[in-house]
This record gives sequence, structure tokens and C-alpha cells, in this order.
Amino acid sequence: MKYISLLGATGSIGTQTLDVIRNHSDKFRLVAFSIGKNIELARKIIAEFSPELVSVKERTDYESLKAEFSSNIRFSYGDDGLVEVAAYEKTDVVVNAVMGSVGLFPTLQAIKAKKTIALANKETLVTAGHIVMEAAKANEVSILPVDSEHSAIFQCLQGEKEKNIERLIITASGGSFRDKSREELKDVTVDQALNHPNWSMGAKITIDSATMMNKGLEVIEAHWLFNVPYEKIDVLLHRESIIHSLVEFRDTSVKAQLGTPDMRVAIQYALSYPDRLSLTSGHKLNLAEIGKLHFEEMDLNRFVCLKLAYEAGRVGGTMPTVLNAANEMAVDAFLNRKISFLTIDEFVSKALEKHHMINHPDLDTIKMVDQETRAYINSLL
Amino acid sequence: MKYISLLGATGSIGTQTLDVIRNHSDKFRLVAFSIGKNIELARKIIAEFSPELVSVKERTDYESLKAEFSSNIRFSYGDDGLVEVAAYEKTDVVVNAVMGSVGLFPTLQAIKAKKTIALANKETLVTAGHIVMEAAKANEVSILPVDSEHSAIFQCLQGEKEKNIERLIITASGGSFRDKSREELKDVTVDQALNHPNWSMGAKITIDSATMMNKGLEVIEAHWLFNVPYEKIDVLLHRESIIHSLVEFRDTSVKAQLGTPDMRVAIQYALSYPDRLSLTSGHKLNLAEIGKLHFEEMDLNRFVCLKLAYEAGRVGGTMPTVLNAANEMAVDAFLNRKISFLTIDEFVSKALEKHHMINHPDLDTIKMVDQETRAYINSLL
Repeated sequence: MKYISLLGATGSIGTQTLDVIRNHSDKFRLVAFSIGKNIELARKIIAEFSPELVSVKERTDYESLKAEFSSNIRFSYGDDGLVEVAAYEKTDVVVNAVMGSVGLFPTLQAIKAKKTIALANKETLVTAGHIVMEAAKANEVSILPVDSEHSAIFQCLQGEKEKNIERLIITASGGSFRDKSREELKDVTVDQALNHPNWSMGAKITIDSATMMNKGLEVIEAHWLFNVPYEKIDVLLHRESIIHSLVEFRDTSVKAQLGTPDMRVAIQYALSYPDRLSLTSGHKLNLAEIGKLHFEEMDLNRFVCLKLAYEAGRVGGTMPTVLNAANEMAVDAFLNRKISFLTIDEFVSKALEKHHMINHPDLDTIKMVDQETRAYINSLL
Repeated sequence: MKYISLLGATGSIGTQTLDVIRNHSDKFRLVAFSIGKNIELARKIIAEFSPELVSVKERTDYESLKAEFSSNIRFSYGDDGLVEVAAYEKTDVVVNAVMGSVGLFPTLQAIKAKKTIALANKETLVTAGHIVMEAAKANEVSILPVDSEHSAIFQCLQGEKEKNIERLIITASGGSFRDKSREELKDVTVDQALNHPNWSMGAKITIDSATMMNKGLEVIEAHWLFNVPYEKIDVLLHRESIIHSLVEFRDTSVKAQLGTPDMRVAIQYALSYPDRLSLTSGHKLNLAEIGKLHFEEMDLNRFVCLKLAYEAGRVGGTMPTVLNAANEMAVDAFLNRKISFLTIDEFVSKALEKHHMINHPDLDTIKMVDQETRAYINSLL
């Protein structure tokens, strides 16, 4: 039996993690989880999974839940609550599915507590990859990727040596606007951007798919997760999202991981690793039925955010933090109809240009640069 | 340094094995090889690789080579010579690239001598899979596949557990006649059949590609190599031969191995396993350049030989021996313009119908059934 802590139970990854645990209740047990303000969902999860520790965002919610439930369950709240869930004594695997940079500190605490990390929170590696991977190494902790691209690469690397990796090839569906020219992107609406062709995901990540920033963040994550330099990480446009990513080895052999789009495969693999379990109500891939798979070169002038991500990654230091914070603010502004779609990469580009890179930043520096960047983007609005 | 014995140095696999050894002379050394009647090539290989043991087919060739070369090289000939090369004391890996059922006995002797087997000889597993795999297990010897499909599956299975395999999916280019209906196959010529769209191979295997018997033999080999029942082995038509084969796991995750058509990748992987080496003058796969990959269901009524192979495999015992022997004779008759293309599967079908299956055959029984089948096909000519 593996004991699971889930950071962020509300979102797409969180609810699908619960589904995986539900389907394999003989293998996995949810011992702790954190949730934001959706207290109704918290009640349901408590009723179904009987966890031992629950953390919410607000103190008031914490107090009402504490009053409501028996003393068998421990409650907590805020940033401290996240850390408690992440480092909960009984826990074997921490699924980090919180959104934004708030996911970073709990990850580090979980690593120190020698927990296996199933990582869905991008910011953890994008802003602090150097700190996280060093801590993971020092504590002999595995960081298991949860999104489909990195899980694909991770699966392809099983039984292989790092030194034999020639290239990582991350596939990209191209997002909602893959067939639009940059000219045509001028007037696109929020609703158009939210209509992703293959995956059903949250609003922020769907916009990041349309701008290709999502792929950019994935490139930076892949760099840290697999210890591969940026010049050996490619992005390949693959409309069908059937091949989730590929690895080329030094002998020209290429391995790929494929499947129908179902985030639970990557989530479950991280939980069951190195074993595999059957996927309840999973859809088998039928290539004959699909008939064709398409591949196109990625145009970095068309997808400016991807180019910016490569540049920020290569420069390193605090640059990816600026990239990420500026993008979060800009996407938020776009979703709130304050700026146009193309202003997203314009703002990110401006933030990167303005920033003076600090090398090997510690957590305080990362936090400071994150806040400065957000303030800067606010000043542009 | 790995010491290599090469059984069958003349053919397509043999010469490419020499190429791999040549390109990594710091890793591999050819200590022994066998060759048929191409004595001129034998001389060249001796001059280049300075092996310690050389076996030829005929006694007369043996005697002339022995007289010609210094006493540093040991010579041998015939069936005994093959076994000597296979079980040569210094040898670490035996590459079995001889054609036909003559490859079986040396493989078993090499297994008993605890050599790692890099297996390109199909008959070894098709006719005696039960004997070979049991001997390999008893002697704790690895059988490493050398053809591209099984190497692909083997690569995909690295780091995976046998119990988690849901399905093997062997890809097939469809051969020279993939776009012809059965009606249109009536009058095809030998020259048309020898014109394979993707791979440059020997005559027998090119015809086997056109009849799809090659895929049928591969299905039987895969059954033995990977211990997977026939109902979990599929064949998928994939014209481009870029995906060399796939494995589906119980969580619906699918892994594939891809590459440009180059037999050296599989040969070198078997020699370098579990490591990988760079492939000298290898062509990298560029999916964006290829643009599209196509997949179609395999029609067993169109490709009768594949259906017969599945049937022979499922019944088991001596049936695959009959399938293989009848096919060898029929293909030979077709190549010699004695029968038409469609008569190949007709003859194989007749031989299978006529035969009374013997369960768990030993080597003598296999040999007897092989000879009986060949005599029967001869009687039809």
C-alpha cells in the first residue's frame, strides 16, 4: 500500500489523481490532501477517502471544518498547511498538483522529508530547478513527472543510460490557434483560446498551449528533470497528441510513448512506478483507426513564447522566474479581457529585457524576482 | 572488449555485423566466423579482422584456406565447424546470421556454452522455440533479437515487467505488393516481388515480405522471445517502416521504437546491450521531414501466409516447422520460376493440412518433420 499526499485536490490533475486512487484502493490510500476554497469538495473527499490530514487555504474554512468533523482528522491551513500535507509522516508519495509558485516550498519540504515527488506543478522546476534537483539528489529522492510529455520521456528512459541520450523531442499539439498566422492572432478572443483541440485542461494551461508557453515551460522542466542541455531538446508539432514525446539515443534509435489523451496514465504511472496497473475505463490506442499521424517543424517566429522560454532557459539564473511570473500575470490579464492575445508574449518579452539576471538564485531571490516581475507587469496594465 | 562469433558472414546481416564491429574496434573483436562458399570474402575478412577461428561449408575450401594461411588461425568446416564457431571458448556474443534450419543446432550449443546469443536466424525460434528458450533459461543466457521488429519490442521492454505487457504490435510495411489485390497477385513476377519498398534484404526474406510470411514468422518468434500468447500479438500495416514495432502495457500506455531503416541499429544494440554506442554514418530520424505516418489494419484474408502462421503458431508442436519448411521450399520454387506467387501460400496450406501435429517435438523429430515437409513440397512440383 502506498500512502499518498495530494497537494491541490480541486484542479484537473487533483481530481484525476483522486480517480486513480479510487480505482486502486488496494494499492493507494489518500492520507492527506490540501485544497483551496472549495470546501464542499473537501467535505466530499473527506467522506470518500477518510484522510488523516486536510489543509485548506483560509483560516475560517479551517475552523468550520475542524468544528464539523471528528477529532480523527487533523486540519490545517495556509502555507504551513501545504507543508504539513507535503511532509506528512506516513506519506510515501506527494502529488504536487497546486498551481503557481506556491507549489515550490512544499516540494522542497517533501524532498527533505524523503518523500517521492509526483510533480505536476511546473513552477517548481521552472523557477528553482537547480535547487530542487540538487535537493532531490542529496536526499536520494525521485522526482516523477506527472504531465504527459515528461512522463512519456521518463517512460522511454527506463532501462536507458543518461549518457546515451542524444535528444529529447517534446511533441506539441499546437494549441487552439495552430492554424492561424501571427497576423490572424491579433483579434482572437478568450473563448476561442480556451477551445483546445485535444486536451481538456484548466484555463491558464489552455492559454499557455495556445501561446506555446506551455511547451516552453516544459522544455525548461525537461532540462532539469532529465539533465539534458537546451540544444538537445526539440519541440515537434504533432496535431494528434498521440505520441506524447520521444527520446533519440546516440545510436539513432528513437523511443516514443503513445496513447489516447488521458492524463490519468501519467498520474497513475507516477503513483505505480516502477510497476504499472490496469487503467480503469482507459481507452486503448488504435492506430489503424486513427490512420495517420502528422508532424511539422515548430516555427519559433510564429510561437514567440516558445522562443522566449528557450532564451530564458539558456541564460538561466532568475530568467525563467521572470518568464513564468510575467506569463502568469499576462495570461491572467488576457483571461480578464484586459489585454489582447498577442500582448501576452509582448509583456513577457519586455519583462525579460528589463531584468538583470541573477545567477544561482536562492529561494528568497526567486521570490523577490517573482514579485518584482508581477509588479512590473501590473505597471504595464 | 566483447569477443564476437559470427555465424554467416556473407549475407545482409553478416556484412552489416562486420560493419558494426569495424566501426567500434575498441569495443568489439571478431574472434570467429563461419561463411558458406564465398572464399574470396573469407580471405578479405581474415585480412581485415584477424580472427582466430574460421569455418567454411566445404572440406575442399577448408583445406585450401588451411594451406594458405599461417597456423595462427584455426580452420574448420561443415556442421561441426558451425558448432565450433558458436561455442568458441573466448566468445562472449554469438551473432547467428545463418539462413535456414542449419542455424538451430549451433544456437543450442552456444547456449550450453553460456554465450549471449544475438539471433537473426528465424528458424531457431520458429521451429524450436520451446527447446531454445528453455535451454536459455536453464543456462541463464540472454537471447537478444537482431531483426528490427523484435529489437524494437526488446528496446521498449527495457525497465518494464513482463506481467504488464498487454499487447505486442509488430509493424509491417506490407512488402512489394501491398497495394495489389489478391486477384492482381496472380501474374506477378519474381522481379516485381524482389522490389521491396523500404528495406534492402536478401531474396528469400524479400519474398517473405511480399507474402507476409516474414511477419508470420516474426509473430511466432515474438511469442517465444517475449513469452506472450498469440492473441496478444498484433500485426499493423505501417507503410513507412519508421515505427519498427510497439508494446502496449496494461495501463494503455504504448511504447514504440522508431528509426530510419538501418539494420545496423538492431545489430549494434544486440552487441552493445545494455549500453548504446554511436552509429557511424547513421541517419537520424526527422519526423517533421517525413511529415506523416500511416497505419492500416492487416487483412488476414489478403495475406494468407500471415493467417497460416498464426494458425500454425497457435496449434504449436511441429506445425511451425511444417510452415517454415514448406514456405522455404515454395519460395525457392517461386524464385526458380517453377510456381506462381499465389502457389506459395497454397503449398504451405496443403503441407499444414496434411501434417499430423506432434507435441513437444525434440530436435530429431523437428528434423524429421522438416525433411518430410520438404519432400512433400517437392512431390507437388
